[in-house]
Amino acid sequence: MIYTPKEETESRTARLKALMEKASLDGAFFHYKIDYYYLAGTMQDAILYVPLEGEPTLFVRREIRRARRESPLSQVIPIRSLKTVKDYIGNPRRVGLQLDVLPYNFVTSFHKVLGDVEVADISPLINDLRKIKSPFEISLMEKAAVIAKKVYEKIPEVLREGMMEIELGGILEAYAKTLGHEGLLRVRSQNFEAYSWHILSGKVGSVVSQMNSPMGGLGMSPAFPVGASRKKIRRGEQIMIDFGICYHGYQVDETRMFAIGSIPELFAKAYDACREIHYRVLDKALEGATCAELFSYSVDLADKLGFGDNYLGYAPHKVNFLAHGIGIELSEAPFIATKMDYPIEEGMTFAIEPKMVFPRQGCCGIENTVLMEKGRYRVLSDIDERIIIVD
Amino acid sequence: MIYTPKEETESRTARLKALMEKASLDGAFFHYKIDYYYLAGTMQDAILYVPLEGEPTLFVRREIRRARRESPLSQVIPIRSLKTVKDYIGNPRRVGLQLDVLPYNFVTSFHKVLGDVEVADISPLINDLRKIKSPFEISLMEKAAVIAKKVYEKIPEVLREGMMEIELGGILEAYAKTLGHEGLLRVRSQNFEAYSWHILSGKVGSVVSQMNSPMGGLGMSPAFPVGASRKKIRRGEQIMIDFGICYHGYQVDETRMFAIGSIPELFAKAYDACREIHYRVLDKALEGATCAELFSYSVDLADKLGFGDNYLGYAPHKVNFLAHGIGIELSEAPFIATKMDYPIEEGMTFAIEPKMVFPRQGCCGIENTVLMEKGRYRVLSDIDERIIIVD
Repeated sequence: MIYTPKEETESRTARLKALMEKASLDGAFFHYKIDYYYLAGTMQDAILYVPLEGEPTLFVRREIRRARRESPLSQVIPIRSLKTVKDYIGNPRRVGLQLDVLPYNFVTSFHKVLGDVEVADISPLINDLRKIKSPFEISLMEKAAVIAKKVYEKIPEVLREGMMEIELGGILEAYAKTLGHEGLLRVRSQNFEAYSWHILSGKVGSVVSQMNSPMGGLGMSPAFPVGASRKKIRRGEQIMIDFGICYHGYQVDETRMFAIGSIPELFAKAYDACREIHYRVLDKALEGATCAELFSYSVDLADKLGFGDNYLGYAPHKVNFLAHGIGIELSEAPFIATKMDYPIEEGMTFAIEPKMVFPRQGCCGIENTVLMEKGRYRVLSDIDERIIIVD
Repeated sequence: MIYTPKEETESRTARLKALMEKASLDGAFFHYKIDYYYLAGTMQDAILYVPLEGEPTLFVRREIRRARRESPLSQVIPIRSLKTVKDYIGNPRRVGLQLDVLPYNFVTSFHKVLGDVEVADISPLINDLRKIKSPFEISLMEKAAVIAKKVYEKIPEVLREGMMEIELGGILEAYAKTLGHEGLLRVRSQNFEAYSWHILSGKVGSVVSQMNSPMGGLGMSPAFPVGASRKKIRRGEQIMIDFGICYHGYQVDETRMFAIGSIPELFAKAYDACREIHYRVLDKALEGATCAELFSYSVDLADKLGFGDNYLGYAPHKVNFLAHGIGIELSEAPFIATKMDYPIEEGMTFAIEPKMVFPRQGCCGIENTVLMEKGRYRVLSDIDERIIIVD
């Protein structure tokens, strides 16, 4: 197992404190485990307090020995109840909490524990805090990308006519787990669960669902209405495989196209257009364009390539993003999307996914997890980008 | 796919309204998808409004056609923004929201949309609403139990010396998916993710983690510190396999013991004690004891059987529940636990899981999903309860 080094939590905390100071916060609590994993290196049941001045303290309900082993913080304290937290934190005037995700009842009862303190929403800062990845974080994403590459290389071995989408998903998931994939992907939203097995074949690729994605798939039931289904994969269909991987909490997201026997020409052409958009947008990102500019550039490109009606879904189901940042959450800053007026900066990682959907026909697309470096970009997921046709 | 029948949503809504009336609510909104799936039969992105008088309305952001196909409700309306909801609901004085799970920011911004309305927490009613299962719900759990049985029958075929816990988990997960398992389990809590692959072998069975469980396992990393790990399964070790299944949103939860070659005698004996506790508690439940009484009865039994120090974990990591209700959430009412002063009633389903943990040695236990019927109980998961020893 890899533990988060002390230099990591120290530099992350220093950056957080700078953001807190700007936001006039005397302290901040982190009780959403994804957020305190970033700052404390553990997902044991805990709450983290970061004061503007002084050392952070991790208050651990369960289990203290693991938290101490995993976290490089020097103050890791066992507690039985959140009520005792108050005794350790002095008298901050104004503290931050993740009001975007923490349940209403938790926030109001914890506010009572804190007493006469102003509570502010720190969630906008979290986006800023995490959007530049450190070399340590990138090393974990590189390891996730190696797993992804092996999973995609496995597909031609196991894909066969007549298997169900979900069957293929299960086989790939099982293989990925042997390589270190943790099995769950993570999104900040409560009503959208992430999953790896987004495998859509033939017409199913045009089915929309509750997800903010150009294509949802049939899924397994009304209770799981997205992703791979029990539909059998047939010869001559385009098969889109969008399979996310998580390693030590760090995710990569990839999409490739497959077929048995042959792929319909429409989808081969549309896939070429996706690849062209993918790389031309990356080139333009190097010039310093804002994410909103990159998005509208991609829309124009899709139009010029003759796929304006299909790009990122068909009306009225089009989505308004081409890329989502990725790291310990599957979808985080930056977003190549409408309204995003910042450029892609050095150290940002994002999954760029130009996709096309044809009503009642299906979908295709490519997706790579990309790191912006100094003056160049690097595709972390080094996976064959040709359409793979198996016999 | 199986859709929720109209009689189901009607009878559930009628029961909800009776609870709402007692709580002086003129209406209730449901925006947590597990909750509105129960009342509307769909998990499309939506918010459900149930007025005390009149028909419920499901407001759907995405995707309206699927929501209409899946939901038996007669009022299923597309919306672009939650702001438009206000136009449809009249002028309720007091409405319920799931304040236990909905994020603070959502609640406050939605309250603004509603304007001058009192917002009350409806989450305590949800527990009451769902604790008695209908024959339709039980039929889905029976189907989940059939999948579980097949998965457990597969284990002797695939278990082999030297395989990693997570490898076995992946194989079982893949197989379960081919049978209709949906891949994700669901819990109401934000910081605890459920997963199927809770496979703990040898000493690893005594490792505690952040979960409220007698044993957590090593997991895959500090970012996924529970369940199956990369530890290799060895000959002569006790292997506990706790593998949940989800079918059309309905879950069952089971645990059985396995070994390669032989199982240490301590664990064979402790497992017998677990089985005895399991069935004697069920017998006592038929007599109408409260859940708190059942729990303390089980603690006394464990003491008498000589496993008081190991029952439900070792100090200070013991947990205070023997059984959790189960349905569309993996953990819901009823709980056989301290402080629960209600009896097990006809129509309740619960997973009963007496388990023993021995420090630095490991764990064992049994778990079944059980339905309380009129004057008798029925184990839904009809799986061989003997310890399975493979060569």
